[in-house]
Amino acid sequence: MLVVMEKSTSEEKIQVMVNTPMTKPYKLVSREFKPENTQVTIGDAVFGNGSLPVIAGPCAVESQNQVLSIAISVKDAGAKIFRGGAFKPRTSPYSFQGLGKQGLIFLAKVREETGLPVVTEVMDVENFDLVEQYADLVQIGSRNMQNFSLLRRAGKSDRPVILKRGMSATLQEWLMAAEYIMEEGNNNIILCERGIRTFVRHSRNTLDLSVVPAVKKESHLPIIIDPSHAAGVRDQVISLAYASAALDADGVMIEVHNNPKEAMSDGAQSLYPEQFIEVMKKMNAIHTIVGNNSEKIPC
Amino acid sequence: MLVVMEKSTSEEKIQVMVNTPMTKPYKLVSREFKPENTQVTIGDAVFGNGSLPVIAGPCAVESQNQVLSIAISVKDAGAKIFRGGAFKPRTSPYSFQGLGKQGLIFLAKVREETGLPVVTEVMDVENFDLVEQYADLVQIGSRNMQNFSLLRRAGKSDRPVILKRGMSATLQEWLMAAEYIMEEGNNNIILCERGIRTFVRHSRNTLDLSVVPAVKKESHLPIIIDPSHAAGVRDQVISLAYASAALDADGVMIEVHNNPKEAMSDGAQSLYPEQFIEVMKKMNAIHTIVGNNSEKIPC
Amino acid sequence: MLVVMEKSTSEEKIQVMVNTPMTKPYKLVSREFKPENTQVTIGDAVFGNGSLPVIAGPCAVESQNQVLSIAISVKDAGAKIFRGGAFKPRTSPYSFQGLGKQGLIFLAKVREETGLPVVTEVMDVENFDLVEQYADLVQIGSRNMQNFSLLRRAGKSDRPVILKRGMSATLQEWLMAAEYIMEEGNNNIILCERGIRTFVRHSRNTLDLSVVPAVKKESHLPIIIDPSHAAGVRDQVISLAYASAALDADGVMIEVHNNPKEAMSDGAQSLYPEQFIEVMKKMNAIHTIVGNNSEKIPC
Amino acid sequence: MLVVMEKSTSEEKIQVMVNTPMTKPYKLVSREFKPENTQVTIGDAVFGNGSLPVIAGPCAVESQNQVLSIAISVKDAGAKIFRGGAFKPRTSPYSFQGLGKQGLIFLAKVREETGLPVVTEVMDVENFDLVEQYADLVQIGSRNMQNFSLLRRAGKSDRPVILKRGMSATLQEWLMAAEYIMEEGNNNIILCERGIRTFVRHSRNTLDLSVVPAVKKESHLPIIIDPSHAAGVRDQVISLAYASAALDADGVMIEVHNNPKEAMSDGAQSLYPEQFIEVMKKMNAIHTIVGNNSEKIPC
Repeated sequence: MLVVMEKSTSEEKIQVMVNTPMTKPYKLVSREFKPENTQVTIGDAVFGNGSLPVIAGPCAVESQNQVLSIAISVKDAGAKIFRGGAFKPRTSPYSFQGLGKQGLIFLAKVREETGLPVVTEVMDVENFDLVEQYADLVQIGSRNMQNFSLLRRAGKSDRPVILKRGMSATLQEWLMAAEYIMEEGNNNIILCERGIRTFVRHSRNTLDLSVVPAVKKESHLPIIIDPSHAAGVRDQVISLAYASAALDADGVMIEVHNNPKEAMSDGAQSLYPEQFIEVMKKMNAIHTIVGNNSEKIPC
Repeated sequence: MLVVMEKSTSEEKIQVMVNTPMTKPYKLVSREFKPENTQVTIGDAVFGNGSLPVIAGPCAVESQNQVLSIAISVKDAGAKIFRGGAFKPRTSPYSFQGLGKQGLIFLAKVREETGLPVVTEVMDVENFDLVEQYADLVQIGSRNMQNFSLLRRAGKSDRPVILKRGMSATLQEWLMAAEYIMEEGNNNIILCERGIRTFVRHSRNTLDLSVVPAVKKESHLPIIIDPSHAAGVRDQVISLAYASAALDADGVMIEVHNNPKEAMSDGAQSLYPEQFIEVMKKMNAIHTIVGNNSEKIPC
Repeated sequence: MLVVMEKSTSEEKIQVMVNTPMTKPYKLVSREFKPENTQVTIGDAVFGNGSLPVIAGPCAVESQNQVLSIAISVKDAGAKIFRGGAFKPRTSPYSFQGLGKQGLIFLAKVREETGLPVVTEVMDVENFDLVEQYADLVQIGSRNMQNFSLLRRAGKSDRPVILKRGMSATLQEWLMAAEYIMEEGNNNIILCERGIRTFVRHSRNTLDLSVVPAVKKESHLPIIIDPSHAAGVRDQVISLAYASAALDADGVMIEVHNNPKEAMSDGAQSLYPEQFIEVMKKMNAIHTIVGNNSEKIPC
Repeated sequence: MLVVMEKSTSEEKIQVMVNTPMTKPYKLVSREFKPENTQVTIGDAVFGNGSLPVIAGPCAVESQNQVLSIAISVKDAGAKIFRGGAFKPRTSPYSFQGLGKQGLIFLAKVREETGLPVVTEVMDVENFDLVEQYADLVQIGSRNMQNFSLLRRAGKSDRPVILKRGMSATLQEWLMAAEYIMEEGNNNIILCERGIRTFVRHSRNTLDLSVVPAVKKESHLPIIIDPSHAAGVRDQVISLAYASAALDADGVMIEVHNNPKEAMSDGAQSLYPEQFIEVMKKMNAIHTIVGNNSEKIPC
C-alpha cells in the first residue's frame, strides 16, 4: 500500500518518501523507512543504544520536599530521569488534579538541585507552552494517544516526547500516533508500553511485553516499559520490572514514593525507596545478561 | 463511598451534593442524585422522553451538494437531525482530515435549506468556539472521551453534547466523563454507545447493547446507539439498527451516503438512501412495540 | 487456501469436496459449499426457515414439579422446545452439579405431558448415550466448544446439536468446531451465540449480535441467540431478547423459572413466567416486522 | 463465603475444611488453606522450590528420529523434562491430529534413551488410561481447562498434572479448575500460563505475567510459563522466555524443533536447538539474579 500524502510536508521529506516504496500504512516511524535505531538523548540517558535508562519518581508532584526527597533517593539508586505529574488526568473530576504550574516549579527545582532531567505529562495544547518551558521531556498519556491536536503540537516542540500506548491501541494505531508527531518535524519520540485493557481482574491492566519485539521489528523508535501503571499493585510491579529488564526494552519507568500510604494518587503501585534500590540492582544485572542478542540471529 | 470535592464548585451545587449521601463515584450524572430522566430537546427531537429520534448523514462532509442531497433524503425518511464530520479524527495523518471550517459552512447551509439541526464533532478546545457557532449539537468522539480539557470546555458550552463511549471505557469511566461536563454546568448530555474493542475480527467493534439498560439504571442521561461505527459493514449495520430500536434506547445515529463507494471515509458502513428509508420504517415499527415496559415492573 | 484432508472421509464426500475449490478453512459448514440455508426441524420448531422458534425453561432441572410447572407456562406462552440442565458445568466443584439421570427422567416426563421436545446439555462422551436416549436435541456448552472428542461423538449422533460459542471463540474457530460435527456425518447443527468475554463489568458477558449476520454470510447453518447467559441480569435479558428478535436470528433461547429467587443456579437471569408471556408477544411482533429483508438486497 | 460441600469427600478432608473458615470460593488450592508452597517432583525437576526447571521439545511428536534428536539436544542444554504432543487439539478437523498411541511409544523410547521424563497432552477421558501408561506427567490443555469430566479423571490419576490456563479464564476460574483435580485426591498440579485472548494482533495471544505473582499470593501450587504458545513467533518467544525467567515463576515450557520450517504444527514458534542452548544459559543466569526476594518483604 502506498502512503497517500494529502497535506503539505517539506519538499525534501516528500522526495525521500516518494523514493521509498512502502508496504505499511506508517512511513516516517517505520524501520523500512529508517533501518537504524533512533537514539534519544536526555542528559546522561540514551534511549535506543542498548542501555536501560530508568525514569523514576512519584505519580504526582505533591510538595517541594516530597519531590526533592524522592529525587535524591532515585538518583542515588541510579535513575537517570525524574518523573512527577503536575497535571494529572483523573477519571473523576473530584479527584486530585495535580498542582499545575506550581508542580512544574517544584520539578524545576529538582533539576536544579539534583541535576536530573525531569519529565511530566502534558494534557492539552493550552498548557503545552507552559510544560515545555519547565520539562526536559514531555509525556503524552494513554488517554491522549489519539488526541491528534496534541500530537501535532508535540510534533512542533523541540522537547523529546514519551508517547504512551492507549489502553486498547493496536500496534498500528500507536505507530500512527507517533507518525503524527514525526510528520510535524519532531523525531525524538520514545514509545511507552503501560498495559492494555483485557478481561483480567487480578491486575489493573495486562502488560503486553510482546509489543516490545513487535515494535522493534516495525519501527526504529525506542520503546520503554512502565510496569507501575500496568500492574497497579506493588508486588506485581517488582515482578514486571524484572521482566521488562529481561526484554531488550530501551528503558523502564517506575513509580517511587517516599510514603506510598499517604500518596495523593496511585500509592498502592509505588515502590518504597529502599525497594527501588534493590530493584535497580537486579534490573541492571538482568539487562547485562540479555544485552547480547546473538541467539536471535539465525532465525 | 462519599464523593470528595477537591475543587471549587458553586455553593448551591455543593449544598445539594452535601445533602445527598452518595454510594457511587459519580454524582451529578447519577439516577440516585436525579431520579427522573433528563430530556434533551433539539428542534423536533427529544432524547429521553421515550421517543426514538434518528440522527443521520454521512461520515464526513465532502461538498455542499453531497450534504444537501443526503440531508433531503434522510429528512424525507424521518431523520430529525443531520450529522456530518467537518473535523475528522483519523488514525493516519495522511488520511482525509475533513474540510474544517468550510465543512461547517456547508452544514449551516443544510440547516438553512432543510430546517434540520446539525451535529458535528469537535476535536479540540482550539476549535470549540468555531464549531459551537455552526453546530446545534456538538459531538465528542470516542478517542476524546477522556480528553478532560475538552470535556470541561464542553461543560461551559450552551450546546447539547453527544458524548461517545471510549473504545475500552467501562460504564463508570464513561459516566465520570459526563460528570466532568455536568460539573461545569452543562446538563444537556446525550451518551452514545458505538461499539467496544474486543478480540472479535468479524466486525470492526462489538456493539455493547447491555450498556443501554445498565446506563438507564445508573444515570438519568439519555443514551443513543451508533450501529454504523460498531459494525463497520453495511449488512451488520442494518441488523444492529433494528436491534438498537428494540432496546429502549433514546435514539439512533446512522451513517447514510448518497454514493458509499466513493465516500471519503467509512463508505463500507454507510447505508444507501433507499435502504435508510426501509430501515427507518422498520425501526419505528419496532420501537412502537417495545415502548411499553410493563414486563419489567415485577422484577 | 485448499483444505488438506488428512483423515479418512467417505469417498463420495471427498469427491464433492475435491470438486469444490474452497477459499475458507472450513468446508462442509460453509455457504460456499452449500448455498441454501440448512433447516433443522424438531417437533413444531424449524430453525433456519425464517421463523423464530423459542426454547425456554430453567437453567437446571430441580424437581419434577418444577419442570412440569415451567413447561406448561412456557408452552402456553408459545415456546416450541423446553430446556433444562440435568448435567451442569459449574466453575466450582462444590456448586450444584445437576440431578444427572434423574433430571433426564424428569425431562422425559415433561415431553410426555406437554408434547414439547426437550433439550439438555451433554458434558462428556461418557454420558452421551444416556443423554441421547432422553433428549430430542443435545446441547454442547461454551466450555466444550473445542472438546473435539465430544464434537466427534456428537457428529455420530442422530440427534440435532446446539453448539454454543466458546467465550472467546472467533467466528472461524466456532465454524471449525461445527465442521468437526458435520465431518462425522451429523448435519443438524444449530449455532448459539451466548455472549463473549470482554473487559466489560456491567454484564456477565457481552452479547455479540454482529456475529448473526456474519455467520449467515459464511455458513448455511441456523444461528440462535441466548440472551440469558450473555446478560446475567434479568432486566438486561429482556432488552437483549428484543434485540435478538430484531435481528434475523433463527431462534432464541431464554431461561424462565417459576421461582427465580430460589433457583439452584442462575436465578438472577431467569425471567418470571408472567414476564415471559409479555416478552414472547413482543419478540413475535418484532420478528414479523424484520422478516422481509428487501432493504439488504441492493448492497 | 463458606464453601458448601455438596458431594462426598473423605471424612478427614471435610474435617480439615470445616475447621478452616474460608473467604475464597476455592479451598484446597488456596494458600489460605495450605500456606507453604506445594512442590511437585518429577525426575530431577522440582517445581515449587525456587528452582527453574525447563520443559522442552516439539509441539507434536512426528517420528522416532525427530523426538530422539530433539531430546538429546534439549537435555544437553539443560532441560529437565521432554515434551511432545501425541494427541493434538486442532482447530480444524483436517489438520494433523497427532500420531496417537504411536507417538506415546516414541516418547517412551525417548525416556528410555535419555532418561528424561516425558509430558504429553491428554485430550479426553477415553484416552486417559493410555496416556497415563506412557507419560510421567500429563498435560490438560487450554481448551479443556473447564472440561470437568477430564479434570475429575486427572484427579484420580497418580500422575502429576500440568493444567494450562484457558484462553479467557480468570484467575478464579483457573484455580477452581485445579480445585476439581485436588478435590478428587491429586495434589500434584502445576499451573501453566500460556497467554490470553485480547484485542492484540501482533502476537497470537498476550502473555499475562501478572498472573504469576497473583497466583502465588492466592495459591500454594507451582506455576510455570509457556512463552511459545503465547507469542506464536520465534523472536517474541525468546524475549518472553527471558521475561519468564525474571519473574519468580516455577518453571518454563518451550517448544524446540530440529527443523522448524518443516514442523507439522507450530513451526514458526519453535526455537532452533542452537538458539535454545543460548536461551537456557541466559534464563538460568537471570533466574539466579531474581532468586532472592528480599525486596518484597517490606511491603
